[in-house]
Amino acid sequence: MSRSINLAVIPGDGIGQEVVAEGLKVLSAVLPQDVKLETEEYDFGARRYHATGETLTDADLDALKRHDAILLGAIGDPSVPSGVLERGFLLKLRFAFDHHVNLRPSKLLPGVATPLAGQPEIDFVVVREGTEGPYTGNGGTIRKGTPHEVATEVSVNTAFGVERVVRDAFARAQARPRKKLTLVHKNNVLTFAGHLWTNTFNKVAEEYPEVTTDYIHVDAATIYLVTDPARFDVIVTDNLFGDIITDLAAAVSGGIGVAASGNINPSGDYPSMFEPVHGSAPDIAGQGKADPTATVLSVALLLRHLGHEAEAARIEDAVSADLAERGALPARSTSDIGDALAARVAG
Amino acid sequence: MSRSINLAVIPGDGIGQEVVAEGLKVLSAVLPQDVKLETEEYDFGARRYHATGETLTDADLDALKRHDAILLGAIGDPSVPSGVLERGFLLKLRFAFDHHVNLRPSKLLPGVATPLAGQPEIDFVVVREGTEGPYTGNGGTIRKGTPHEVATEVSVNTAFGVERVVRDAFARAQARPRKKLTLVHKNNVLTFAGHLWTNTFNKVAEEYPEVTTDYIHVDAATIYLVTDPARFDVIVTDNLFGDIITDLAAAVSGGIGVAASGNINPSGDYPSMFEPVHGSAPDIAGQGKADPTATVLSVALLLRHLGHEAEAARIEDAVSADLAERGALPARSTSDIGDALAARVAG
Ligand SMILES: CC(C)[C@H](C(=O)O)[C@@H](O)C(=O)O
Ligand SMILES: CC(C)[C@H](C(=O)O)[C@@H](O)C(=O)O
Repeated sequence: MSRSINLAVIPGDGIGQEVVAEGLKVLSAVLPQDVKLETEEYDFGARRYHATGETLTDADLDALKRHDAILLGAIGDPSVPSGVLERGFLLKLRFAFDHHVNLRPSKLLPGVATPLAGQPEIDFVVVREGTEGPYTGNGGTIRKGTPHEVATEVSVNTAFGVERVVRDAFARAQARPRKKLTLVHKNNVLTFAGHLWTNTFNKVAEEYPEVTTDYIHVDAATIYLVTDPARFDVIVTDNLFGDIITDLAAAVSGGIGVAASGNINPSGDYPSMFEPVHGSAPDIAGQGKADPTATVLSVALLLRHLGHEAEAARIEDAVSADLAERGALPARSTSDIGDALAARVAG
Repeated sequence: MSRSINLAVIPGDGIGQEVVAEGLKVLSAVLPQDVKLETEEYDFGARRYHATGETLTDADLDALKRHDAILLGAIGDPSVPSGVLERGFLLKLRFAFDHHVNLRPSKLLPGVATPLAGQPEIDFVVVREGTEGPYTGNGGTIRKGTPHEVATEVSVNTAFGVERVVRDAFARAQARPRKKLTLVHKNNVLTFAGHLWTNTFNKVAEEYPEVTTDYIHVDAATIYLVTDPARFDVIVTDNLFGDIITDLAAAVSGGIGVAASGNINPSGDYPSMFEPVHGSAPDIAGQGKADPTATVLSVALLLRHLGHEAEAARIEDAVSADLAERGALPARSTSDIGDALAARVAG
C-alpha cells in the first residue's frame, strides 16, 4: 500500500470530462491525510486529434509510464472516423502497457433497476483477455472498394497470453466465497483457438482443486446472462467475447451508468488503467446529465489495485448506499451525485 | 408454389428425433390434399459417426441435393468431441449448400414468458451471414501443446459474400411495415471487415430510399436487446455476431423452445435447411419433455420458402393460439403439443 499516488488523468471526450471530475472528487475525499495524491491531466481524444493529427505518441507513452495508475473518462467522438481513436488510442494503450487482464465486475445492487424480471441475484466478475484475440489488428484488405474485395481479421491466441489470464482468473475465483470459474468461448467452431483455451483452462484447473469449473459457448452464455445470471461467479474469456458479454452483463446489472472496469497489468511493469465501461455519450455531454457512478467505481478498482482495500470498500459501500436511495430522490446532476458520494466516503 | 414437396429429414441426436416427428405431423396436417409430400430420412449425427467415423460424405451431399428442402432436428452429443459434428456436419452442410442467408425471426407472442420485465414488444428478424466470417475454418495452430503454441482463427469477408446477404436483408426490410434495417458489427475494432460491411451496407442503402438504416456495435446491440428490443425490425450481421445475438434474441423472446431458423440459399441451386435454434439437449432426450414448437415454426419457414405462404401462416397462427393458452394448461408432452398444433392447423 503506497503512501503516495501519482495518477495520470485522461478525461477524454464528451461526458468523460464531467465524470472524471467527480471520480477525482471522491478519490480526494476518501484518501487518508497521509496519502499524497498527485495528478497530471492529459489532453488525449478528439480535440487533440483534430488539432495535431496525433492520438498517442511514443512520447505520450513515456510520460504515462511514469505514473502509478491511469484514470480514463471516455474517448470517442462522431467527428472522428470510426476506429481512429479506438485503434489509435484505446487499443494502442492497452497493447503498449500490456493490459492483459481486463477486469469487469457485475453486481446488481439493491434498489438498482434491471431490465430483467424478478430482480435476480447478480454478482460475478468477468476476466476478459486484453491483448490478443481479434483485437490485435492483424488482417487486411485486398482489392479494396472493388467487387472482389476480401477483408480478413485474424484472431491471434498464444499459450503465453491465454495461460496468464486463465491463471489470473483462477486466482480470483479461488479468493471468492463461491470459488467457481466459467470459461466462455466458442470451441466447437473456433476449434484452433478453442482448443488452446480449453486445454489451458483444464491444465491450470488441476492446480486449483477447490475451484469448480465449467465451460459455456459464448452464444449460450448470453442466454444464461438473462435467464440465470446467478450461475456465474468468475468468467474468463477472450478479448472479443469479453467485450460483448460485459456490455450485456452491465445492462442486466444496472446499466452502463454503474459499470466499472480495469485494464490491468498485474506485473506492475506498466501502470494499469481504470475506466467506466460506457463511452463518451456526446449527445448528453456538457449538460450535467451523466452518471459519474461508473467512474467512481472505477476509482475503487484503482485503489484496490494499488493496495488501498479499505478505501476501495468505502467507495463501494457509499455507492451501494447512494443507489439504494436513488429511487426516492429527484434526478440529480453529475456533480450532485459526485458531491453525495464524496460526502459519504469522507464521513 | 410447388404441388409436391420432396423433403430430406434429418432427426439427428438427442431430442432431435422427438421434435422432428412432431414437425412432420404438423406438416402433414397443414398441407392441402393435392400437395404430395415425400420424405426421406437420413441417419446423420453421433450414432452414425460412432458406427462409421463419417459425418457427411460427398455421396451424402449428392443425395441431399436432390431434395426440395431439408428439415433438421439437432446434431450433437457429449460422446463426440466438441467441433467434430459441428465442423464435420452442420457447418460442412451450410458451406456445401451455400446457405448464406441464416434467417432467425424473433417474436414475443402473447402469453409467452420472457426474462425481461414489462413484456416489451419484440418482433424482428436477424439475417445472419452463413458462409463467411470466422466460420470458414481458416486458421491453424503451431507448436501445439507447448508453451509456445500459437492458434489463429481467420475471419474471411468478401465483397461478394457481404453484398448478397446485405441485399437480402434490405429486401426483407423493404417488405416489412416498419422498413428498418440495422447493421450490427464491430467496425471500430475489426476495421478491415468493418469497413467492407459498412461500405457495402451504405452503398446498397442508396437503392432502398424507403428503408431507414442504422448501425450498432455488437456489444451495444446486446444492451439494446434487453433494454429496448422494440427498436429492431431487421438486423443484418456477420456469421459470429449473428450466432451470438440470435441466442440472446431467442432468450428474450420466449426462449430457444420457440426459436426457429432457416439456412437459406436464395438462388435455389441447393436445397435450404430449416432447424430449431436449440441443440440436441441430451439431458432430456427420449423423455417426451422437449418442446417441438421451434421445430414446428421451422416447418413454417420451410413452407414459406417453398411458396406455401398460406400454410406457413396457418402454422404460425396455430402456434400463437397454443402458446397463448399454455400458461393455463398442465405441462404437456412433446407429442401432446404436436397433436394440439396438428389439430389446430387441420381444423
Ligand atoms: C471502444 C472499444 C475499442 C472498446 C472495446 O471494444 O474493447 C469498448 O467497447 C470496451 O469494451 O472497452
Ligand atoms: C452448433 C453451432 C455450429 C451453431 C453455430 O455456431 O452456428 C449453432 O450455435 C447455431 O447457432 O446454429
